Amino acid sequence: MNTFGTLFRLTTFGESHGAAVGGIVDGCPAGLPLAVADIQAALDRRRPGQSHLTTPRQEADRVEILSGVYDGQTLGTPIAFLVRNEDQRPADYAALAAGALRPGHAEFTWRRKYGHVDPRGGGRSSARETLARVAGGAIAAALLRARAGIEVRAWVSSVGEIDLNVPPEEVDVSLIDATPVRCPHPATAARMMARIEAARAAADTVGGCITGVATGLPVGLGEPVFGKLPALLGAAMLGINAVKGFEIGDGFGAARLPGSAHNDAFVFDEALGRARPATNHAGGVLGGLTTGEPLRWRVAFKPVATLPRQTPTLTVGGAAATIPAKGRHDPCVLPRAVPIVEAMAALVLADLWLAARAGA
Amino acid sequence: MNTFGTLFRLTTFGESHGAAVGGIVDGCPAGLPLAVADIQAALDRRRPGQSHLTTPRQEADRVEILSGVYDGQTLGTPIAFLVRNEDQRPADYAALAAGALRPGHAEFTWRRKYGHVDPRGGGRSSARETLARVAGGAIAAALLRARAGIEVRAWVSSVGEIDLNVPPEEVDVSLIDATPVRCPHPATAARMMARIEAARAAADTVGGCITGVATGLPVGLGEPVFGKLPALLGAAMLGINAVKGFEIGDGFGAARLPGSAHNDAFVFDEALGRARPATNHAGGVLGGLTTGEPLRWRVAFKPVATLPRQTPTLTVGGAAATIPAKGRHDPCVLPRAVPIVEAMAALVLADLWLAARAGA
Amino acid sequence: MNTFGTLFRLTTFGESHGAAVGGIVDGCPAGLPLAVADIQAALDRRRPGQSHLTTPRQEADRVEILSGVYDGQTLGTPIAFLVRNEDQRPADYAALAAGALRPGHAEFTWRRKYGHVDPRGGGRSSARETLARVAGGAIAAALLRARAGIEVRAWVSSVGEIDLNVPPEEVDVSLIDATPVRCPHPATAARMMARIEAARAAADTVGGCITGVATGLPVGLGEPVFGKLPALLGAAMLGINAVKGFEIGDGFGAARLPGSAHNDAFVFDEALGRARPATNHAGGVLGGLTTGEPLRWRVAFKPVATLPRQTPTLTVGGAAATIPAKGRHDPCVLPRAVPIVEAMAALVLADLWLAARAGA
Amino acid sequence: MNTFGTLFRLTTFGESHGAAVGGIVDGCPAGLPLAVADIQAALDRRRPGQSHLTTPRQEADRVEILSGVYDGQTLGTPIAFLVRNEDQRPADYAALAAGALRPGHAEFTWRRKYGHVDPRGGGRSSARETLARVAGGAIAAALLRARAGIEVRAWVSSVGEIDLNVPPEEVDVSLIDATPVRCPHPATAARMMARIEAARAAADTVGGCITGVATGLPVGLGEPVFGKLPALLGAAMLGINAVKGFEIGDGFGAARLPGSAHNDAFVFDEALGRARPATNHAGGVLGGLTTGEPLRWRVAFKPVATLPRQTPTLTVGGAAATIPAKGRHDPCVLPRAVPIVEAMAALVLADLWLAARAGA
Repeated sequence: MNTFGTLFRLTTFGESHGAAVGGIVDGCPAGLPLAVADIQAALDRRRPGQSHLTTPRQEADRVEILSGVYDGQTLGTPIAFLVRNEDQRPADYAALAAGALRPGHAEFTWRRKYGHVDPRGGGRSSARETLARVAGGAIAAALLRARAGIEVRAWVSSVGEIDLNVPPEEVDVSLIDATPVRCPHPATAARMMARIEAARAAADTVGGCITGVATGLPVGLGEPVFGKLPALLGAAMLGINAVKGFEIGDGFGAARLPGSAHNDAFVFDEALGRARPATNHAGGVLGGLTTGEPLRWRVAFKPVATLPRQTPTLTVGGAAATIPAKGRHDPCVLPRAVPIVEAMAALVLADLWLAARAGA
Repeated sequence: MNTFGTLFRLTTFGESHGAAVGGIVDGCPAGLPLAVADIQAALDRRRPGQSHLTTPRQEADRVEILSGVYDGQTLGTPIAFLVRNEDQRPADYAALAAGALRPGHAEFTWRRKYGHVDPRGGGRSSARETLARVAGGAIAAALLRARAGIEVRAWVSSVGEIDLNVPPEEVDVSLIDATPVRCPHPATAARMMARIEAARAAADTVGGCITGVATGLPVGLGEPVFGKLPALLGAAMLGINAVKGFEIGDGFGAARLPGSAHNDAFVFDEALGRARPATNHAGGVLGGLTTGEPLRWRVAFKPVATLPRQTPTLTVGGAAATIPAKGRHDPCVLPRAVPIVEAMAALVLADLWLAARAGA
Repeated sequence: MNTFGTLFRLTTFGESHGAAVGGIVDGCPAGLPLAVADIQAALDRRRPGQSHLTTPRQEADRVEILSGVYDGQTLGTPIAFLVRNEDQRPADYAALAAGALRPGHAEFTWRRKYGHVDPRGGGRSSARETLARVAGGAIAAALLRARAGIEVRAWVSSVGEIDLNVPPEEVDVSLIDATPVRCPHPATAARMMARIEAARAAADTVGGCITGVATGLPVGLGEPVFGKLPALLGAAMLGINAVKGFEIGDGFGAARLPGSAHNDAFVFDEALGRARPATNHAGGVLGGLTTGEPLRWRVAFKPVATLPRQTPTLTVGGAAATIPAKGRHDPCVLPRAVPIVEAMAALVLADLWLAARAGA
Repeated sequence: MNTFGTLFRLTTFGESHGAAVGGIVDGCPAGLPLAVADIQAALDRRRPGQSHLTTPRQEADRVEILSGVYDGQTLGTPIAFLVRNEDQRPADYAALAAGALRPGHAEFTWRRKYGHVDPRGGGRSSARETLARVAGGAIAAALLRARAGIEVRAWVSSVGEIDLNVPPEEVDVSLIDATPVRCPHPATAARMMARIEAARAAADTVGGCITGVATGLPVGLGEPVFGKLPALLGAAMLGINAVKGFEIGDGFGAARLPGSAHNDAFVFDEALGRARPATNHAGGVLGGLTTGEPLRWRVAFKPVATLPRQTPTLTVGGAAATIPAKGRHDPCVLPRAVPIVEAMAALVLADLWLAARAGA
């Protein structure tokens, strides 16, 4: 279904080339200061055309709030919002309308599941749907910041074979938006940008990873059995288009370690007046619940499936077809995916923060 | 909460050293042949003491079905089952009762979240809870096999630095249970077993990975937005104790690739009478829905946190404490985790298979 | 929360005097023919100003579909819709903004629950929210009609002390909309209309009942324990503003009867080729599941709380306040509530019809 | 499905003549004192054979707690419990096994929905399932009493044509259990008992009503749109076997009143320091949320369908069949239904009380 969350819930709607994309946030407490500008700022980090690295499509993506806010504060009622679609060029999608299957795309499975689909730009399978997640996540982030002192940040930590070799805890998050690639280390960012331009020059695309960190967390967020925080956060990340992997803490690296190297010993923290883990191999969770240490995770994105080159393919029935070279797609989705990763993480944490207030 | 699934739902209960561990499966259709032996066989693959690689705890783990089955077939009503706990040695847990925090364990977060905890053997945070998942998964697997022709299998694909270097599609699944380590390649299995024995000899533990594959899938299982199959399957895996990472298809490797190498081109399959992907970098999903190709994923387990050595630690308040060397734990959780991985995957697929019948 | 249903789900949003009221239908299968006119026709039966019996507020309530429909058919994706609010006269609500508590209204409880409220016209507690239910219900009704042959109808069966004395199975549903009061018996309708005019003349309001019937049902819709059809239908009805009672079949009358009079004996139906109940005291359900006989229920609405007269009252803090006589409210909500009752019943049945397809 | 509630959740299992009936309470906060005796006391009020008014079946119905309680307090983990079935006389049910349809019973709909059913005593459609609701409700009631000061009570307010003519607010709840019929007015109770004996003497059964009241409520429990308190409470009541009607406050009587008579005016309460309704026609809710006044509702039960007389009937296929006169059923379900009504109301209120803590 199209709803995410239990107590803080986002439902999204909209096809890429339909009338609008938007959503409803349900469960946001009353009395939270919220302005359209808070949401718009998040959307501006996701929108196409924001830099030379991204698609040249120009969409202003202006958000309108329809309900749930009065006199600058939330009412505790559903917050509905929408963004009208613009710059629709359905002619670009004639091959799809004729049934051509784009390799790596969703038409193949969608057509079988639904029978009737909107062929224009992927319809609802388009990443344009994530616009509504970024808007919803901006509301969640506002709640977390104002009520709980929790901050969520993410950045590009690899593009193709180029890795950011700075430990997450040493990253200067103020530099995330300093370059269009959203890697907070200028020298690495420059290499990543060159890598993306090289992909474009080769009429190709490139994948990469995003690292996320949340700070200011209390001890105990999460549910200890099926709803472990890694399960909920992982589902949030793996529900983003093009994501193929998720790890928390040392992740796949932990599978190589002996227990004596991976365990985080406890030390006494005078300032907190309690024990805490001295290291953070666990990435901020034990037994599926937050430890109060920074929550740290990493997400793998496959390369963009749409290549800027003419591509031969088939229809489901086996007829030869061609995907034309045009199309205005990103050679690398990572820079624009950073706000999506932040948004989905904020939605998870807002939901769990409300659950903890209920004693659950 | 302690419920997993939407239409095919498992709710589990039980503390490690309480009266019993068990669960309720709700939503299983009526008329499915089901015997206690079907569930017992799955539990026997998970139970302690089954080989020299695992804990010497001897627990028969006999399951009793309390409801939902009549005359050898399911009734469509809740199927409740339980396993009585045995071999309880609460004296082993005196240090925990006194508040000692085991590194890498859940006491730290549980005590803060709940205040009142059962200190005996981790209580509900013990992996003994997964017994109920294996039982529930056996029912899901029976449904998938009988009604849909879907099979789920998993095996140990790495222990520490030792990898199984056989492509998943070439693995002989009939060999999974041929060795106690559940790696279906005898030579690699032998090396893995030696690695586990070496960990035990060093009073240490070791992590590793499990690979899973599901076959016989129709096209289109999954929900295309938040409930993408990788999101649901990932949450199922990341909700297993000790899991730190999940990837589907090429996973983190996909993040290194250009689109031209990662995309799976379509070919026409005469036998199926339709197009299908010629390769399976995607791991059996496109747009979050199954493609009908084998579903392939990998799960990373951290090393067992309980070391068979005396370990100094603290209480939450900072008092010095010692975890004694005794305890009867596995040096490597991987062999016993194979049926858990299979169970959780079967639960996800049974749920989605029912949803597809509803047209959702 | 603001979502109704499990598989066929409606989420609504909007304050009475905010920018818009609307909703999202999630879970409607793909390929269903759906036009804006189908929804508009339902809204026109609910809108204010449609006859002399209702409020003189004139609101066109034009609905716009934002997503989920392409080329005249549903896509299987969320169907979002909205109606812009018009005819806003916030000046009417100065007393409320100052904290006056209207007897019988929601301000008293809303202010305590949310702290921050929209005082204009009741905000979200206004019955204007039901507009979105009627729109969602029109989609459910289209699905039921096209795919399952199920029809839902409702009519006014009492106003104050005036009852429609025609057994539900003998009612001519084609006459429901023949009079503005929506009682399908012209002579009784005339008396009801006179009763409503009398209330208006007395600066008072009046309550009444609506009877609903659904036909074309298969045997077995519903869930047999907590989700019995009467429970789900009852919740749907009792969630409508001003509803104070619900009964199914003989309802409260059944509590007076001996079992020998209430039981519906079985007879063999040649046309159906199976047994069926000869009478329908049960109202179309046994064991919480539909019997295939007409589903029959009745709903009690309290009189409209807003009286067209100046009313002294208090603020929460105890200060004297006055509700002015103006305001443009209905003396009787029943005629406009008929499409709301039909809509909520259609939502319940569409949800259960999808569940039955899943085998649940 | 077989789960009730959102944050405080009860899942039940068990067939009438299977191994056991029981359930799992999930979401109960940790640290609540809870003893087996608390649950047993509630079950003893529901069990068969407790007085001459009820079935002579003798079942001790001893409850066992399997998990979730340690050292006399809840752990915050699932509380599983079961009652073994005894006194099974499957021979009583030979006619059912042969396919006879009992008028007023669930076989007709269950056989069509599930195909495979347990014919012994109604299987899961038996009211024996409500045993698990009473146990779960006892836990909810303990939570409400200890943490919130909320009390839920119910009593028999009519049997057949005999009504209790005492306003609910004047009832002496200490007399509820003073007579076997659970009507807290001895003279009326005597008449009701005679009425039940008369039904038995006539080889017939009789219906009636139960009135419930909850006190100690805060202002604002409930959800203002679909989850209005009357909707949730009504669904809880209408999900009880044999219930055909529900009303809150003046209920169906409100539909006869003018607004000027039904509205509850506000007065200032010096002790509370705030305004409150002077009367309680509304039954303790406004806008779907609690007002802090006593919550008052009424539930209609149809007469018991099983008559103590030989009854001719049919199979689904139309073959003549006979329901034998034996069977050990109650002539009136009301006295034993009182704890069920209390239990379901406690479950609803515990759930909403937790939700309110989350700010929802």
